[in-house]
Parts: sequence; C-alpha cells; structure tokens
Amino acid sequence: MTDETLVSLRRDLHRKPEPAWREFYTTARIVEELESRVDLDELHVGRDAIAAEHRMGVPDEAELTAWYEQACEYDVDESVLESLDGGYTGAVAVLERGDGPTVGLRVDIDGLPRAEADDGDHAPVAEGFRSEHEGAMHACGHDAHATIGIGALEAVAESDFSGTLKVFFQPAEEVVGGGKSMAKSDHLQDVDHLLALHIGLDHPTGEVVAGIDGFLAVRHLEATFTGEPAHAGGHPEQGRNAVQAMATAVQNCYAIPRHSDGATRINAGVVEGGSAANVIPEEARIVAEVRGETTELMEYMHEKAERVFRSAAEMHDCEVETEIGAAAPSATSDQELVDIVADVADGVAGVENILERDELGGSEDATFLMREVQQNGGTACYVGVGTDHPGGHHTSTFDVDEESIGHGIEMVAGAIEEISRKQP
Amino acid sequence: MTDETLVSLRRDLHRKPEPAWREFYTTARIVEELESRVDLDELHVGRDAIAAEHRMGVPDEAELTAWYEQACEYDVDESVLESLDGGYTGAVAVLERGDGPTVGLRVDIDGLPRAEADDGDHAPVAEGFRSEHEGAMHACGHDAHATIGIGALEAVAESDFSGTLKVFFQPAEEVVGGGKSMAKSDHLQDVDHLLALHIGLDHPTGEVVAGIDGFLAVRHLEATFTGEPAHAGGHPEQGRNAVQAMATAVQNCYAIPRHSDGATRINAGVVEGGSAANVIPEEARIVAEVRGETTELMEYMHEKAERVFRSAAEMHDCEVETEIGAAAPSATSDQELVDIVADVADGVAGVENILERDELGGSEDATFLMREVQQNGGTACYVGVGTDHPGGHHTSTFDVDEESIGHGIEMVAGAIEEISRKQP
Amino acid sequence: MTDETLVSLRRDLHRKPEPAWREFYTTARIVEELESRVDLDELHVGRDAIAAEHRMGVPDEAELTAWYEQACEYDVDESVLESLDGGYTGAVAVLERGDGPTVGLRVDIDGLPRAEADDGDHAPVAEGFRSEHEGAMHACGHDAHATIGIGALEAVAESDFSGTLKVFFQPAEEVVGGGKSMAKSDHLQDVDHLLALHIGLDHPTGEVVAGIDGFLAVRHLEATFTGEPAHAGGHPEQGRNAVQAMATAVQNCYAIPRHSDGATRINAGVVEGGSAANVIPEEARIVAEVRGETTELMEYMHEKAERVFRSAAEMHDCEVETEIGAAAPSATSDQELVDIVADVADGVAGVENILERDELGGSEDATFLMREVQQNGGTACYVGVGTDHPGGHHTSTFDVDEESIGHGIEMVAGAIEEISRKQP
Amino acid sequence: MTDETLVSLRRDLHRKPEPAWREFYTTARIVEELESRVDLDELHVGRDAIAAEHRMGVPDEAELTAWYEQACEYDVDESVLESLDGGYTGAVAVLERGDGPTVGLRVDIDGLPRAEADDGDHAPVAEGFRSEHEGAMHACGHDAHATIGIGALEAVAESDFSGTLKVFFQPAEEVVGGGKSMAKSDHLQDVDHLLALHIGLDHPTGEVVAGIDGFLAVRHLEATFTGEPAHAGGHPEQGRNAVQAMATAVQNCYAIPRHSDGATRINAGVVEGGSAANVIPEEARIVAEVRGETTELMEYMHEKAERVFRSAAEMHDCEVETEIGAAAPSATSDQELVDIVADVADGVAGVENILERDELGGSEDATFLMREVQQNGGTACYVGVGTDHPGGHHTSTFDVDEESIGHGIEMVAGAIEEISRKQP
Repeated sequence: MTDETLVSLRRDLHRKPEPAWREFYTTARIVEELESRVDLDELHVGRDAIAAEHRMGVPDEAELTAWYEQACEYDVDESVLESLDGGYTGAVAVLERGDGPTVGLRVDIDGLPRAEADDGDHAPVAEGFRSEHEGAMHACGHDAHATIGIGALEAVAESDFSGTLKVFFQPAEEVVGGGKSMAKSDHLQDVDHLLALHIGLDHPTGEVVAGIDGFLAVRHLEATFTGEPAHAGGHPEQGRNAVQAMATAVQNCYAIPRHSDGATRINAGVVEGGSAANVIPEEARIVAEVRGETTELMEYMHEKAERVFRSAAEMHDCEVETEIGAAAPSATSDQELVDIVADVADGVAGVENILERDELGGSEDATFLMREVQQNGGTACYVGVGTDHPGGHHTSTFDVDEESIGHGIEMVAGAIEEISRKQP
Repeated sequence: MTDETLVSLRRDLHRKPEPAWREFYTTARIVEELESRVDLDELHVGRDAIAAEHRMGVPDEAELTAWYEQACEYDVDESVLESLDGGYTGAVAVLERGDGPTVGLRVDIDGLPRAEADDGDHAPVAEGFRSEHEGAMHACGHDAHATIGIGALEAVAESDFSGTLKVFFQPAEEVVGGGKSMAKSDHLQDVDHLLALHIGLDHPTGEVVAGIDGFLAVRHLEATFTGEPAHAGGHPEQGRNAVQAMATAVQNCYAIPRHSDGATRINAGVVEGGSAANVIPEEARIVAEVRGETTELMEYMHEKAERVFRSAAEMHDCEVETEIGAAAPSATSDQELVDIVADVADGVAGVENILERDELGGSEDATFLMREVQQNGGTACYVGVGTDHPGGHHTSTFDVDEESIGHGIEMVAGAIEEISRKQP
Repeated sequence: MTDETLVSLRRDLHRKPEPAWREFYTTARIVEELESRVDLDELHVGRDAIAAEHRMGVPDEAELTAWYEQACEYDVDESVLESLDGGYTGAVAVLERGDGPTVGLRVDIDGLPRAEADDGDHAPVAEGFRSEHEGAMHACGHDAHATIGIGALEAVAESDFSGTLKVFFQPAEEVVGGGKSMAKSDHLQDVDHLLALHIGLDHPTGEVVAGIDGFLAVRHLEATFTGEPAHAGGHPEQGRNAVQAMATAVQNCYAIPRHSDGATRINAGVVEGGSAANVIPEEARIVAEVRGETTELMEYMHEKAERVFRSAAEMHDCEVETEIGAAAPSATSDQELVDIVADVADGVAGVENILERDELGGSEDATFLMREVQQNGGTACYVGVGTDHPGGHHTSTFDVDEESIGHGIEMVAGAIEEISRKQP
Repeated sequence: MTDETLVSLRRDLHRKPEPAWREFYTTARIVEELESRVDLDELHVGRDAIAAEHRMGVPDEAELTAWYEQACEYDVDESVLESLDGGYTGAVAVLERGDGPTVGLRVDIDGLPRAEADDGDHAPVAEGFRSEHEGAMHACGHDAHATIGIGALEAVAESDFSGTLKVFFQPAEEVVGGGKSMAKSDHLQDVDHLLALHIGLDHPTGEVVAGIDGFLAVRHLEATFTGEPAHAGGHPEQGRNAVQAMATAVQNCYAIPRHSDGATRINAGVVEGGSAANVIPEEARIVAEVRGETTELMEYMHEKAERVFRSAAEMHDCEVETEIGAAAPSATSDQELVDIVADVADGVAGVENILERDELGGSEDATFLMREVQQNGGTACYVGVGTDHPGGHHTSTFDVDEESIGHGIEMVAGAIEEISRKQP
C-alpha cells in the first residue's frame, strides 16, 4: 500500500502541473517535503542544482514570469521560489551514510502543455485533483516520479544503506531540455551507479521492467517561414504565402523515406501561421522533432527535414530559418544493475511479472545522465514500473494507479541498498 | 490642404486601431468629435445604430472584454462606452436640412489584427503615431475613412445642402461582419442615394475613381480538425494527426480548379494546430475565406473547399467541422451617381486624374448597404480616393498620404450637395 | 442542308483522326478532294506549305514513322504522302480571281490523342464512323473545320468573288505547334484579311459568334525529374524518389496564386514515373501547360511553375529539367470584319441567333496568323459556328451536328465575297 | 574458380532477362542445360512444375504473347516453349540417390522491367553481355541464382549424397508472384529440409550469411483513379482531375505514420495519368506495394493506404478502384540448418567471413516455400552469398562478381550433402 501522505503529495503535484523550466511550485513543494521528512546532508536548489549553461528549450521571459507569478500565489517558501527565478528549476538532495558507493536516482518533475480531460470518468476529476492550470497537465506521470523520488529517499534514509545517495529531481524532461544540465552539473560527476525510472509505458500495475533500452535519440527543430502579406481578394499574386510553404513542408516531412538501419520518427507537433482570413499569410511556424534508433538515424531525419523546410520555403518564394533545439542521445542499461533490480523486484509485494528487458521506442533525456555516468566508468539502469493507465501517455485521460507508486519506492530503495552491498 | 484638426484626429485613431466589433475607443472618439463639431439632429450609437441580430464575425466574450477594458483606460465618455459594451460598436449621425432627398454616406472604422512596421522609414513611426496596440494596425486606411466621414458631415452642415444626410460609421468591415447589420437597421431604409468610399486601392494621390465595381462576393469559413493524440516517439501509429489533415487541406484548397466564368479566390489566412513537439497533434484549425466574381462563383469555391476539408480529415482518420462565417454579396455603382461624382471631382484642387470606373477585385460589405438601397428603388455609388501608399493594403507598411483626406472630404461633400440639387 | 459529299468527307476524316504533325492521311485526302472539286491556281503541300523551322511540338521519329506507315495502308496518292514524310503536314490552296484583296481562311485539321466513346448513344458509333485509330479521336471538330475549308473554297470558286483566296489547312493546332509555322510561311505575308473559325464552343446549332476574342496565351512545358533508384524494401533511404518530387510539384503547381490582372490556367495534363512496384522511382515526368489572359499572365504562371518544379526536385534530392514547348499569344478580332460576318450570318438559313462578340477562354494558335496579318496592316476575325455537341470539347463523347457544317461554309464563303466588295 | 561453362551460361541468361511469368527462354535454356549435364530422375516443366491456380501478378495476354514470340526467335527446344505458353514458366528437377531425407533448393530466375546501364564502366557492356531486351535487366542477380541451382545439382549428383534432391527454379519472384504457386505444388509437400539463397545483399565477395531473417511481408496494390476530362483552358471547372487525386495520394501514402511495432514500407513504384497537356486528366494509376516486419504491420500499411487512396479520390471528386495483387509472408531460418551452412561455408575456398545471421529488410516469396516446409514439420534456411556489386540491387549498374557463383555452388552443394548425413 502506498503511504497516504505520499498519495496526497502526488495529488497536490498533479493539481499544479508546470511545464518545462516552469516547475516553480513543484520544486518548492519538493524542497518543503524533503526538509520535513528526511535529515539531508545537502540540498541543492535551482542554479545550484544544475549546470545552467546547458539548459535547453527554455521558454521566453514573459512565459516564465507568468508561471512564476502563479506559483507565488501558493503557500510555499518564498526564498526557495526566488532561487528558481528565471527558470532555474529542479533540485538535488544528498544523503551521506558512511563508506560505500555513490548511488544516483534521477526522477523528472515537469508537466505537459496540454489540457486534462474533464469528464467524470477521469479519476482526477472524480476525486478532485484535476489540473488547476488551464492547458497544462501531468499527462506522463512525472507527479508520481517526483513522489517516488521523495519516498525512496525516505526509505533509504531509514535503512542500513552504506554510501552516498543523491536524488536528482530533474526539470524539463518533456522538452528534453533538462537532462544535459543535470548531467553536466558537478553533482553527477562522482556518481558510481545511476538509476532512473518511468511509470506506465503500457505495462500494467504489478509488472516491472528491470532494464529499459531502445531510447530513440531526439532533436527539436523550429522552422519559421517568412513570406509577404497581400490582400487576399485584391492582389493574391503579390503575396508570398508562408502557410502554403508550411503545409507543403508538413506533408513532405512526414514522407521522408523510412530507413533500413532502424526506427525513425518525425512529428510536426505544433504549427501556426497567418494573421487574418483576408490576408495572404506572411509568417508560419513548425515546431517539430526528429528521432532515430541511433544518433545517426536521428541526424538522417534532421538533414532530410531541413531540406524539406528549405525547399518548401523556396517553392513559395519564402524564407525559412530553422532553430535547432534540445536533443538527447540514446543509451543502454548495464546488465549488473538490471540483475539487481530484477532480484529486488522479485521480493516486492504486488509485483507479479518481471521482464528483464524492454524497448522504449521513445526518447528520454535521462540518457544524458546515464551516458555521463557510464563514460566516467560507472553503471546505469533505467527501470520501468508498470501502472494501469486508462489513456495513453501524453493524452488527456492519462492517469496512474497510485498503488504502483509504492511498488516504485520499494523497488528503487531496495535496489539502492542492494547496490551498496554488491557494488562497493 | 487637409484641415489640421482632422489630420490630428486621424493620427489619434491610427494610434488606437481596434479590430472588428472592438471599436470601443474609436466609436467613442467619433461621437465626441461629432458632438463638438456639428449640430446634429440625431445621433444613434451602438445597439441603436445597428440591427444587432445581423452582426457577423463577433469575437468571443474574453476578447471583447479585453478590448473594452483597454478602451476604458483612455479619456473618453464612459456613458458612450457603456452603450457599446458587448461589441455593439458603430454610430449613425443624422443632419436634417429641409426638403430634399435622404442621402447616405457610409464609412468603415475598424482596424486589422496585424502588427505595424516599426522601422524609421514608416511615417507613423517617424512622426510618432504608430499603433499603441501590439498586434493591431490600421492597415487599410479606415482611420482616414472615419475622418472623411466627420469632415464631410461638417462640410455639408456648412453648405446650402437641402435634404437629409445620414453618415454611417460602420464597424467590422474587415471581417465582412458589420455591413449587413447596418443595411438591415431602420436608418438605412429611407435612404434614397448612398455613397461609400475607399482610400488607396493602388491609385496615387490626385487620382479618383468615380464608380467602383467588381466587388467579389466573399464568405468566411472556419474548419476545425479533430484527431487523437499519441506519444510521437513511443506510439506514432496510435495518433490521428489533425495537423497532417490540415496541411493536406491547405495544399488542396489552393488547388481548386480555376473557373471559366470569372475570378475566384481562396485563402487559408490563419492556421494552427498541435500542442507539443512530442505529441501527435489532435487538433488543428483553418480560418479561410472564399470569394467569387459572382455569388455563384463564391458558392462554387465554398462547395469545393468543404469537400477538400472533409476528405482531408477522412484521409487522416480525423473529424472536421466547418463553421460558416460572415459573407458579403457583390454590387454595382449606378451611372447617375458616377456622373455626379466625376463632375464634382473635376473641380477639386489636387485631383488630377479621374477614372470613370474601375474594378475592385476584392470584397467589401458596403455591398450590403448598396444593394439594400438599390432594392428599395434608390441608387448607390462606391467612390475611390487615390492616395500614395508605401506598402500594400493589409501589409505592415501601409500608410496614407494625408493630403488625400482633404480630397475625399471635398469630393464627397460636393457630391452630396450636388445630389440634393440633381436628384430631388 | 449540308452537301452530302461533304458529310461523307467529314465522316471519313473522323474515322481516321491523326494527332499533331501526323496528319498524313488527312492532308493527302484534303489534297485529293481539292484537286477533284476546284480548279486551283496553286496548291502547296507539306514542306512547301509551312515554314518548317517554326514547327513546334513535333513528336519523335518512331511516332512519326508509325503514323506514316499507317497512312500508307490507305488508298491515297503516294507522292503526296512522300512530300509529308518527317511530319511536314498541312496544305495551302490558292484561288486567283482577278483584282481585289487577298483574303485568307485558316482551318485546322488535327485530331487528339484520346480514345473515342464506344457506346451506341454516340453518333459516330451508331452511324459507323467511329475512330479506327485506338487512342486517337477528332474530339474538337477539326474534321468539320477541314470540311468547311474545302466547302468554302468550292463555294467561293463558284461565286463572283474578285481577288485572291488562300485557304490554310493547318496542322498541329492541339499542341499549338502549327500556327507559327503557317504564320511565318511566305503564303501569309500578302494576306490582307484573315478569317479563322471554330465550331461548337458551347454554342448550339443556329447560333453564331461574329467575332471571338479572349484567347488565352498558352505555353507547353515538360518537366523531367531524375532521382536515384533503390530497393524499396531493402534500402528505401538510398533512393531519391522522382515520383514524390513529381507529386509535390503537381499539387503545388495547381496551387499557384490566382492573379488579379485576369484569368490564368495550369494543367498537369500527362504524368508518369517509376519502373516497378519494388523500386524507388528514379524518373518521373510532367507534361503541362500554362495559360494567361495576357502574355504577361502566362509568363507569370510559367515562372511560378518552374519555381515549383525546381523546388519539388530539390526537396526530394532530385534533378529536374524543364523543356519549354510550343506557345501561342492572344489576339483580337477586328471590328470591320466582325460587322461583315454578322451581316452575312443574318442571311444564312438556319442561323437564328447572332452574337457580336464572345470570349473564348481557351487558347488557339490561329492567333499567330491573326497577329501576323494585323502587324502587316491587315485585319483578322475569328468566327464561332454553333453546333449541338453532346459531350464537351476534348471529351470522348464530343460530336458535331453536321447541319452546322453547311452554316459554316455559307457564312464564311459569304463573308469572303463581301470582304472583296467592301475592303478592296 | 567458377566453372567457365557456368559463367558462360550466366552471361547468356543475363543477356536475355525476362520479367515475371515471361521466363520462356530462361526456362527452356535451364531445361536444356539440366538435360545435358545431369542424369535426372524427374524433370517437371511449366504447368507441371507449379500449382497454376496460385500464380499471382501474371501480366496480360498481349504482354505474354510478345515475350513468348521473342523467345521463339532464339534457338531453343520448341516443345519446351510450348509447355510454357500462357505464362506457365519455371521447372523442378529431381535427383534420387537412395535412402535419406528429401532436400529442396529453391532458386529464382526472373529479371526486372528496367533498363540496364550502357556505359563502358558497366562490366556487361565492357564484356559484351548487356541485356538484349530494351527495358529489361537482370538487376538482382537471378541469372546467377539459376546458374547456382544448376551447378549445385551437378555437384550433388557427383557426390556421395544419399536421399532425394529437388531443385525449384522459381519464376516471378520480383512481383512476389511465383513463390506461392511453387509452395502449393505437390513437389514441395515431401521436402524435409529447404535451402534458398540470394547473392549480394550488400555483402562483399567472400562474405557469407548462414541464415537470413527479417523478411518483410509484402503486398502489391494497384489503384486506378477515374475522373472526368474537360478542356483545360476553356472549362477547367468541368473536369474532375484524376492526376490531382493521384498526386495527393502519393504524397499522403508516403506519410502514413511509422509504427512502433517495427519496420514498415510503402512505395508508389509506378504512376501515370492523363492524356494530353490541354485536357484535365480523367484517369490516373498508382502501382504500389506495402511491407511490414510482420504480416500485421503490412496489413496496417495496406489499410492506411486504401484510406489515403479513397479520400484522395473523394477530395477531387473522382472514383478509385484498388486491385490487391500478389503478397508474401515473413519467415525465419531454422538454427540447425544455419549451423550446417556455417560449418560448410568455413571450408569453402575464398570465403573469408561468415556471419551467422543477418536481417534482410526486404521481401522475398521464398518465404511461402519456407513456411510450407516448416508447417509440414521440416526445416528451412535462407542463405546469403556475398558478391561485390557496383550498383545497388534493382539499379541499372547492378552486376555480380562471378567468383561468388562458385562460392554459392560449393556451399549449397556441401550443405545438402551434410544435411543428408546429419538430418536423416
């Protein structure tokens, strides 16, 4: 059974979803919980938690300010909020318990910029913890991740763990923008073994994946097409139509040839253009992402996408500028940690099915942290904690079975303790 | 030379452009000017000026409120503003001067939802009257039209005109949304002769078109595509991509076959869709307009566009709903008024070139008023007043040569007087 | 009533439709008829009839040979056929009848490369004169035109006409490829007045248009896209897909902005590409045409089309070469000839409705001849002869009402005689 | 070193490539070689070799006749040709050598309908064995496969092999049309162990893949769009443009969402449409194929493609009919045969690198035979024989290193003997 105070914490976070680099309330609330629950040795917040120069996908000033001001209206520690101002969110909590390895646990904490379902079938509605922020939602379970991070820290603090535990509460995973800034912070440099986790992923409650692989490398692109306006009735020929360019680009970028070396993806996730029905549109924009089973495949998609954008602009006599945004590499779980996780999972009440390995088929910027640790000679493992989720990830009816939060805590905490015994 | 107080009025209106049905400040300022300049017999404002049930293209509550509140911050008569609340903008001024025909003059007063140029070459920047409202601009000269309406009323009031003059300060022309509501108001029903006018239209300062024809019939359409979101990396096949549907629709609607019966137009003026780079877009929207040299040709374009929207949705397994918005018919200038305007223009200082007729090739909801008057047995004429405009209509560098405001006033006032003499 | 021998001639030509520059049988049969019916002063055939260096749209050797050999199988004068070998088709017949003006009559004689309907409702099927050549058809009435040319010559020969009559039997109108070569031949240089005609054009039997205008200028384009083949299953990414480039080009060329100066057209009339289902297509082709109400508008469409082809190729990493094919300008009918035709038409039995002017809205390379004569100081007129036609022009069920052949002959011959009286 | 008579045989086959079901000369030549080289126990040809009712992708009568007549001009046994008439090509050769298992070897024999390179760098040009058939080519090495089939049979005949060997010379692999008809023939029903092979596949000479997997399931589709013609200049609006429908379909079918369950493919390999530049195209056609890593994924692509075709037709007011053509499933190589092949390959001179397994990533209708044998309780293995090939498979510069033909023969023959020893 998941601890009731943790369920209540998760629901509070769910109620206040904050997208990438806007996790002001979220970070402050996490800090508050940590301080009240655990006797920490160190707690780094905001600028102190991350390598600020490696942040990617940071929204503009106005957007940051709006969310910051919203957070200020809640009852949280103002001094903590102030240390986050400007979009320096996230925290690293450190527990030192004598000799032993330094083990890291990374959980992500951001929400998504999408509306949550509002009909009565949706549990957060029925039980009163639906998002309070219009157009934002925890649609990928990061509210549960943050909660598991706190629960696991508490559990390890009460165990006979010997070594150092660092929990990384990472912002901005959804825009693959926060992973690198945590990977490059000093805090990660001495980590010997790293765990990361995700809830759901189409696995039901009671099912666990000891080691997840198959992360797609990903890169964000934003193409802005600029043409020339004209009166659409009076002089259509004087316009240079940026929306036609954009539409041509959308159609053709989804049609980039599949690649025999492995999986590729592209998505024109957000588009917009034009100003009024009677004006030939002079500007349009595509916010896209490309992915690949390997970094090479992602580069292949990127190169082709740029070609499509460029030619679509040229076709309609427009200009295009493509801004290259955040990116994340692929990574692999190390077998020794996979074995430990599988063993520990076996003893967790409620866990009934343990898969040794599975492919993610999506992207994750935890891979920055995993690769950093592995390049420093350490090991890393990405764990999947099954949960019954009614809607798919990123959809308006996504929700988690809170039972699985307990599974996650018990499993992760157990694995951390076991690591300190087996991998000194 | 244009009267300096009128130049200053025009610049004040230019500074505060208000799009369709949001002309709160504009209407209040016009009322203020009228009251201070002319001894009117009647002045109808807001709900009293229009047939409210015929308004088209009215924005939503939130949008109206935001603009209303903005207007309240200016120094204008609050009681006038209150009578406009809810988007009931516009005014009708009436001058009674003994026996004679009832002559109408229609001028439109709304701005466009587009940003104004901000470099020093643009006169409103250089001379300090650039738009104060971000994303809004008088890019079609309606600031000058409102000014001409006031100036002409003043001039007629001081002349030996005999009859009744009604000046219609019409809102929402840019969305072809206000014309019908003025055409159907009681005020227009007894008008014997109607003049309407437009500045610019690619004619230079000093050139005049006595009678403009060739108005394209127009209709606004708004198509909303609804699909299904999915994680773009993890399960792209589970999405139903509304942006792909929209892009397919955009491409194909511009490709609707040209028609041998005459000119047609289509424009996907505003598009948008999707929520985040890593989510298969579940919703997208096209704000479009179709036009035709005749109403039949406009219907042809409308029918084809709906077919394109429907099939594009079907192709990507999405749904689409198309809302049919505002519309305007075509119309023709009557020869007897064209003759009068041409004669009067001949005597206006600064007018050097008089074209009897020209084609507009665009749309105008003045046609609702023109047809109403003509169907009631009266005559109507749409006059073009040339002005040097650096940028094209609806573009960010559009501006008028203020000299031509004087031409417009003198010509229109002269024609109104002449009508009262010749068409009793 | 149309002469029965002429009806029978028309049906024979209908049975053997020959597309552009392949009118071997057709020319030979015309020559045979002329020689048997009229005592001509001169008869120029093949190379002697045209300025060979101005031929446009000539098919390749193999195609010419196939049609030539087919013509040889019919019972026609071999020496005539030999003079046409290599695609030098067409003829000019000259009648000298004393002093007076030189009057020209131009009729076109080619068929179209399209299949004819084969169900019993189609008169040529029911009455046994359907096309014998698979994939070719007289779908635009040029069989009737050739017949009218012969009938008019015969009628004028028997009249009291004074002057010189030249009848130009022009090849290759359908590809706008023959007009220029006749316009530039010596035979046209001394023509004072030129008549050209077309049957049908959506006017019923008994209706006549004295002067047709509004010819769209036209130009043919052929774009060849070249990419790189690859195994579509094994290595799709190694291909450069010429069919994707072509499809993108087709979609976007129909979407070239409409122009406010007047009518424009584009058509991707023939496309093809690829070699096998399992090979990424390495080559594709578009045979297109662009048109405009003026030559400038046609140039506008041409320039935009080339841009579309170029960018579509670039988008899919292909090359494109565009060959610019045949073209024709626009032209206007002169009023003095229009008046004469209208007068004469008034006296023709069966003609019940005479329109002075109408717009064609299509293209015609008769305009080359009209402009040549006009530039030399002469006058020209293009006459429309109504005919009930079940299917539209260029469709498989097109046919003419043979009654109207007689109208055409009587009207044209009458006009020629009248010209010699009125325009000495 | 490959036997010189076999090199000469391969070159003769290369010179006369015959596409699917048109392998008249090829089959006759194979029969001739077999009869002269080996003392066979049975030889089944044409209708006797295949289950005729399972043929797929058979071309039309006229096409078959043209190729049949061409084959008749060569010096081959007429009675053999006659048994193939109507497109019943292929042969099964049987060798009985006492007790032991029945081993099958399947080789495919058809060419591709594509032109061969004709510059001097291309070995078949330089050495005088370039294709004699315009527009046809052995661009996938089936000339070498047929040769290996004969060579292996000869080698086994001379060995101490005990059991029965059946060599299946299969027609129509390139259209995945022949595999099923051989799989369903009686000859395959008693086969205990089946080998199939392919040369090249991007592996160099000297490299061998003991067991190939990852065959994509494949299905051929042919969509025919039917609209309405119209004069492209005179009445574009009266047309219903089948080429626009086809182009829209091509663009959107390549853009069908990628699937997270595995690899998918689509290719619009051949397209065509329209009749003339000045006619709105009334008909167009796409010859496509869909593939998937599993049959389900292929079905996913098929269903989406049909939706795209249907909606694209609807969009342009056209009809579409889709004919479903040939198809092939996926399959897997059995480990016990893979082991045998790997062992034998180790002893073949010139073979320097042995890969145990590799993925094909393409399709093959050998899978019909493999699955049939496996479902009957037997085992199957698909072997890759590396060869240096200058151009990719299916491209105009493809060619094989004839050295590798010897490798193939030695390896396959050796494996067959070994099977008879190890898998009695």
